Amino acid sequence: MKSISRRSFSKKIAIATGSVALMNTIPLACAFESTPATKSLGIALVGLGTYSSYELAPSLLETKHCHLAGIVTGTPSKEKIWAEKYNIPKENIYNYENFDTIITNSSIDIVYVVLPNAMHADFCIRAAKAGKHVICEKPMAVSVAECQAIIDACKKANVKLSVGYRLHSEPHTQEIQRIVREKEFGAINFVTAEAGYPSNGNPGQWRLNKALSGGGALMNMGVYAIQGAIYAAGENPISVSAQEFSTNPGYYKDTDETISAQFEFPSGTVGNIVTSHNAKLDRLYAACDKGWFELDIAYTYGPLHGRTSAAKEISYPYQRQQALQMDDFALHITQGAINRVPGEMGLRDLKIVEAIYESIRLGGEKITLDV
Amino acid sequence: MKSISRRSFSKKIAIATGSVALMNTIPLACAFESTPATKSLGIALVGLGTYSSYELAPSLLETKHCHLAGIVTGTPSKEKIWAEKYNIPKENIYNYENFDTIITNSSIDIVYVVLPNAMHADFCIRAAKAGKHVICEKPMAVSVAECQAIIDACKKANVKLSVGYRLHSEPHTQEIQRIVREKEFGAINFVTAEAGYPSNGNPGQWRLNKALSGGGALMNMGVYAIQGAIYAAGENPISVSAQEFSTNPGYYKDTDETISAQFEFPSGTVGNIVTSHNAKLDRLYAACDKGWFELDIAYTYGPLHGRTSAAKEISYPYQRQQALQMDDFALHITQGAINRVPGEMGLRDLKIVEAIYESIRLGGEKITLDV
Repeated sequence: MKSISRRSFSKKIAIATGSVALMNTIPLACAFESTPATKSLGIALVGLGTYSSYELAPSLLETKHCHLAGIVTGTPSKEKIWAEKYNIPKENIYNYENFDTIITNSSIDIVYVVLPNAMHADFCIRAAKAGKHVICEKPMAVSVAECQAIIDACKKANVKLSVGYRLHSEPHTQEIQRIVREKEFGAINFVTAEAGYPSNGNPGQWRLNKALSGGGALMNMGVYAIQGAIYAAGENPISVSAQEFSTNPGYYKDTDETISAQFEFPSGTVGNIVTSHNAKLDRLYAACDKGWFELDIAYTYGPLHGRTSAAKEISYPYQRQQALQMDDFALHITQGAINRVPGEMGLRDLKIVEAIYESIRLGGEKITLDV
Repeated sequence: MKSISRRSFSKKIAIATGSVALMNTIPLACAFESTPATKSLGIALVGLGTYSSYELAPSLLETKHCHLAGIVTGTPSKEKIWAEKYNIPKENIYNYENFDTIITNSSIDIVYVVLPNAMHADFCIRAAKAGKHVICEKPMAVSVAECQAIIDACKKANVKLSVGYRLHSEPHTQEIQRIVREKEFGAINFVTAEAGYPSNGNPGQWRLNKALSGGGALMNMGVYAIQGAIYAAGENPISVSAQEFSTNPGYYKDTDETISAQFEFPSGTVGNIVTSHNAKLDRLYAACDKGWFELDIAYTYGPLHGRTSAAKEISYPYQRQQALQMDDFALHITQGAINRVPGEMGLRDLKIVEAIYESIRLGGEKITLDV
């Protein structure tokens, strides 16, 4: 799709802008694209469950650089409802069988895969093969190998790839990232991130079915806790140990209910995470040489809220996080803005997830990470 | 000192008052004593370091039911300074050699042992043998065996015993205990307690010398984190796993720097603690079915501060915690009030401390607790 010479040019631009990625192991992806800045990109949502219905579709009414252009659903009854509600033309409605014909649809620029985790890799790879840019909902996939396959497919197809970590486009989280980047409170000695919510109202949900989810709390909110610990520490961890707790095994039969894990970071920061499908947890805290910072609404749809030891509230007006996220990705495609959540970040987190499960299997043994 | 018949009477009184201990494995010790309620008990401080100088002695100027009557010090130069500052008669000043002659001093009712941890057992047992009631600073001792020996000695001498966990007499902590006892927010699913402070300014301090301290952060602030997790959960743990982190081994050569541990509680609560001599940590949090509660100044000298999900600040006027603590113990002795921190609580915590060190030795293995 793009010439070699343009890609070389893009690299030069990225260097010239002097952008610095927070995680130095995740490559920058500041490509300068030929698409006009004014173009609003068409997004197709794949999978019309709760998250698409109540978060993504409403957010796409607020986005400036992209819009809801199409849907892909396995439930025929949803087609008419969505078509009417969001004015989606018939030719932009797909099912899982005819999805690949989306390749010929020039009104769809981005495919956002919002299916159960175990279906991410299949549909992301098919979307890439259809020449569409890809947003893959978190967790990126159910294994490191699948994450790598998605990255490879997008690279081969020369399409952009992002993971649905909405918080990187969200101002409270960005303020935390600024505090960390600027070392506002000096060395960061300890970070703790706790993310979870009770999932005990609906035993039939796919998140509790390992074949569809790949895992329980850790795959659901645990990746947010991993993310939080990493952006609070400002670097990737070098080791992890982990423990699993099962307090309601009659309900959580197939997937992990509560997991804690401990990280070591290169600069000496110690990290702790807890995730749960039994406890409501929504916190991020860092203890530094010269103070502390925290979000005590840290991962949910917002508005988030936090404070620092400088007696400063971290508080911004409510905006739909997913609108900010999808606009950021659209600007990455159209204007070469930074890709805030490249596929490599999703891959990194699955490496950590796999190490956590491995540590649990080994009775809490410390696992060296290479992320 | 007291007749059998009086002790039997005391037990009946304790039952009649209907007092309920939060930790059901810790026996009540509500003995009704013959000492008049109006008598102010004389306390002798053993060891005149920072804690005695800047916390206990000033607190004893504010107590109503006890007063600073004597000192025991190994540093002759301190004798004159303290005698003048606190008007202590010469006959109430002891050194470590002649300490046992305190048995004949009727103006000393309580001996408060504030020495390095490894010296607690020796001086507590000697104080008991001298017929004095005993307050043993935390951690109670450097081993379970020593804790048991102190308890046995006090029982044999028929004197009262408490451990210096000042927070049990402190209103913010008591409010947390009330919330837990009354299940204000329903079932408690997760508790986390983090307690620590940087100890990197003075490499020669006894807390970093294992022969004197018995251990590092865990023995110092870790016991507060253990305490916090337990009173936030409202029950004693049944298992623990733990990890040790060393980020500054050149400084923390002899003792543990940072430790995390995970607890399981009988009712299903999962607990987490972190303690450190490298990071400043002072937090307690609980996630419950119907809300949450927290102290975010949780263990230091106060005033503490907290809040709950009922949008309620937990905030009380500043009072010296140690004054409240020593008055409570005096009232236990003189009026049969509850012993808020019996020796058995200190013993329990050392059992947990030993299990934490054992889990670390075994690479994070889960250890069953019997406390």
